[in-house]
Amino acid sequence: MPAPVAESILDAFAAIVGPNHALRDAGATAVYATDPRGLYSGLTPLVLRPGSTAEVSRILKLATETGTPIVPQGGNTGLVGGQLPDGSGSEIVLSLGRLDRIREIDLKSGTVTAEAGVVLQRLREAAEREGRIFPLALGSQGSCQIGGNLAANAGGANVLAYGNVRDLCLGLEVVLPTGEVLDDLRKLRKDNTGYDLKNLFVGAEGTLGVITAAVLRLFPAPKGRETAWFGLATPDDALALFEIATAAAGGALTAFELIQHRAVDFALRHIPGNRLPLEGPQPWYVLMEISSGRSAEDARGLAEEIAAAGFDRGLVADGTLAGSLAQTEAFWRLRESLVAAQKPEGASIKHDIAVPVADLPRFLREADRAVEAVCPGARVLCFGHMGDGNLHYNAAQPPGWDEAAFLALYPAMNRAVHDVVRALAGSISAEHGIGRMKRAELLETEPPVAIAMMRRLKATFDPAGIMNPGKLI
Amino acid sequence: MPAPVAESILDAFAAIVGPNHALRDAGATAVYATDPRGLYSGLTPLVLRPGSTAEVSRILKLATETGTPIVPQGGNTGLVGGQLPDGSGSEIVLSLGRLDRIREIDLKSGTVTAEAGVVLQRLREAAEREGRIFPLALGSQGSCQIGGNLAANAGGANVLAYGNVRDLCLGLEVVLPTGEVLDDLRKLRKDNTGYDLKNLFVGAEGTLGVITAAVLRLFPAPKGRETAWFGLATPDDALALFEIATAAAGGALTAFELIQHRAVDFALRHIPGNRLPLEGPQPWYVLMEISSGRSAEDARGLAEEIAAAGFDRGLVADGTLAGSLAQTEAFWRLRESLVAAQKPEGASIKHDIAVPVADLPRFLREADRAVEAVCPGARVLCFGHMGDGNLHYNAAQPPGWDEAAFLALYPAMNRAVHDVVRALAGSISAEHGIGRMKRAELLETEPPVAIAMMRRLKATFDPAGIMNPGKLI
Repeated sequence: MPAPVAESILDAFAAIVGPNHALRDAGATAVYATDPRGLYSGLTPLVLRPGSTAEVSRILKLATETGTPIVPQGGNTGLVGGQLPDGSGSEIVLSLGRLDRIREIDLKSGTVTAEAGVVLQRLREAAEREGRIFPLALGSQGSCQIGGNLAANAGGANVLAYGNVRDLCLGLEVVLPTGEVLDDLRKLRKDNTGYDLKNLFVGAEGTLGVITAAVLRLFPAPKGRETAWFGLATPDDALALFEIATAAAGGALTAFELIQHRAVDFALRHIPGNRLPLEGPQPWYVLMEISSGRSAEDARGLAEEIAAAGFDRGLVADGTLAGSLAQTEAFWRLRESLVAAQKPEGASIKHDIAVPVADLPRFLREADRAVEAVCPGARVLCFGHMGDGNLHYNAAQPPGWDEAAFLALYPAMNRAVHDVVRALAGSISAEHGIGRMKRAELLETEPPVAIAMMRRLKATFDPAGIMNPGKLI
Repeated sequence: MPAPVAESILDAFAAIVGPNHALRDAGATAVYATDPRGLYSGLTPLVLRPGSTAEVSRILKLATETGTPIVPQGGNTGLVGGQLPDGSGSEIVLSLGRLDRIREIDLKSGTVTAEAGVVLQRLREAAEREGRIFPLALGSQGSCQIGGNLAANAGGANVLAYGNVRDLCLGLEVVLPTGEVLDDLRKLRKDNTGYDLKNLFVGAEGTLGVITAAVLRLFPAPKGRETAWFGLATPDDALALFEIATAAAGGALTAFELIQHRAVDFALRHIPGNRLPLEGPQPWYVLMEISSGRSAEDARGLAEEIAAAGFDRGLVADGTLAGSLAQTEAFWRLRESLVAAQKPEGASIKHDIAVPVADLPRFLREADRAVEAVCPGARVLCFGHMGDGNLHYNAAQPPGWDEAAFLALYPAMNRAVHDVVRALAGSISAEHGIGRMKRAELLETEPPVAIAMMRRLKATFDPAGIMNPGKLI
């Protein structure tokens, strides 16, 4: 257990941001030390809420000088504990929420320059007011912040057409552990002047430095959107439909979500206001979104063409296009309630995996067998972003089981499912990151050459080991 | 000047690839030591042409053990000398051309796995045979290789819609200087398992390791293409037209090239077979390409809509849509002959710059003044990828000047133009890289924090300094 931070050092940190923005009272700091799902709970002697990049710089400089661990935090919505201090009470939380200026929107260059603490929803709305979109869309967008999104390389449902946030980011401002500021806020699509420093920090979960601002890409707002809900017999049918949709719509295919019936069933039973969009249940569903740069008619035409081809080829058993904006919203509300709908059924063991798109059906067959072997009667339910090969593959406890007894199987279940992922050259963390949750597994199972390189990066850029210790690497 | 490599060491290197693939005769090695434009000419005691990743691994291991500098080389088409040995005769060339297997095309996952030595054109054709496209398109595509494209983070005309080759790359196989192989050939759109190692090597110009294979993205082939040639009075008009085109076509806008009349004038005079697509000259031209996932009619409709809006708003003075495939090809042939057309007019001083798209007109005004100040009478001609903010901004010698006298102004001209670029937070190497040509300027003018980070990366991953010394950093 690391030693507690000396009072005099805490005072020096607090002086940088001023008394109103240095929280030391346990009642005030607790919310920064626990995640909203209650999976991780830590302790911190001090939460710093800097108001400028210069203050972040002074904080990190002092941290390096005094060997004080710093845990950067955005909207505290991460799912793997990457944003939380440990239980030692020796880690200071650096909350970026006050860096919340949208510095510039440049419509001609198609960019927005925003500080780390800007809430994603606010950024999306600022773009929409200008007739543009910022396509990153997450369940947590009402509270997650763009700095955290970048640190975690956030994904979501629109990656299919627009890429991960890594792909949406043109430039960064980063404070290094020494306090030096890397100012790379360029609005350029093309820049081959040396090594790609930006992508060192995107996805690094705050272990190499603190992102304080970013230049992000904006896109023209679609002129038409069409949403469809299909019922299908098998994942193979869904894969075949995905091929049809890709060929027909190309970049206009902005979402292709695969959902198992059980997940929908839980959502219909436990989340008020949901209803099944089809006449009766089907084993699998696809939620498809088409966004047309041309017109509403064009979007509808494409969706109808894909639906017709799916019916004709016997892939789609039932399906409907959203007839109104209200229906579109209802489809997405159902999709988004799948996460919360698991809780009333008891404990569940979760996986955030990706495999090559072609291997998704095989993954599902083999993972289902793996789950059954670890816990006969466990109820697999999965949903996710089929177009990215990314599924949230979860197992709910058998009815009537004790939650704790089921959760004791977490490591064994993870291992069994992830073994299937690894055999298919997939990823055990497609979009949620490593954080605290998957660090041990990463270190154990990634190729030693890759782990050694990551360790060398960490040692090179954070030699004092002050940046978010115990996370990622 | 480094010491020559001992004969016994050369023999040991040659033994790894076998006598047929180790070239030592000066007549055979010369072509690997000189670039086709004749700008750089070096000397090498040995060219190694390995036939497998394992051989590359043994070569780099031996190089590290013996401290022997290695210069990786693809199709030898680079424009900044990054692929060439220096004049000391102590650097071994590692030519990747025999690693030329297309290992796999996975249509469902939308990927191709190809070795470093696959020629870009061959990769493009392999994709087309499957009804897909690999969108990277370069003037040198008939001879450049995918490994070199990745090492240079190649760009080209289609970046607007599809991104640089960095964005097209999902996974890499890399041999590290130690001989260790980083196998990260994953076919995943989403993978957040640790630091982004892939992007360390993409764009690193072979200074950190040797890329031996890659997983690259494929896209559905467009169902319709339309090409238009517009004449305009000013770059401001072109920028306004670009805004119209982006709003109308979004991702279907696959090229938007800006060309100054003087460049076209040279091409009409010096390259046989070219003709101006318009009735008479205009100060500026835009070559626009629309690629529709829907149909040929849709592509035509979009192009006509953009043209009509451009005329209505008084931005377009003259314009024509390609009426046939032959005409489309003629437009692009004219565009591509702009490079070669400079030579008959004497020496020219070149720049490969990017600035934020919104600042292109201002860049042109200020850079023109800077050129005139350095050399009154120098003839600015520029062309490039307006949608990416990337221009090839060149200055041809005043008529009648001595070539050598003009070229003596190269450093002063570069400095003057690049000062304008830097004032606009642009890039002095948008797509050609740093290589030998711009290394000194990079080290002098990039922010010291960035340079220090790059040096630390180099020292961390190539401590013996054997990888392509004297390039990039």
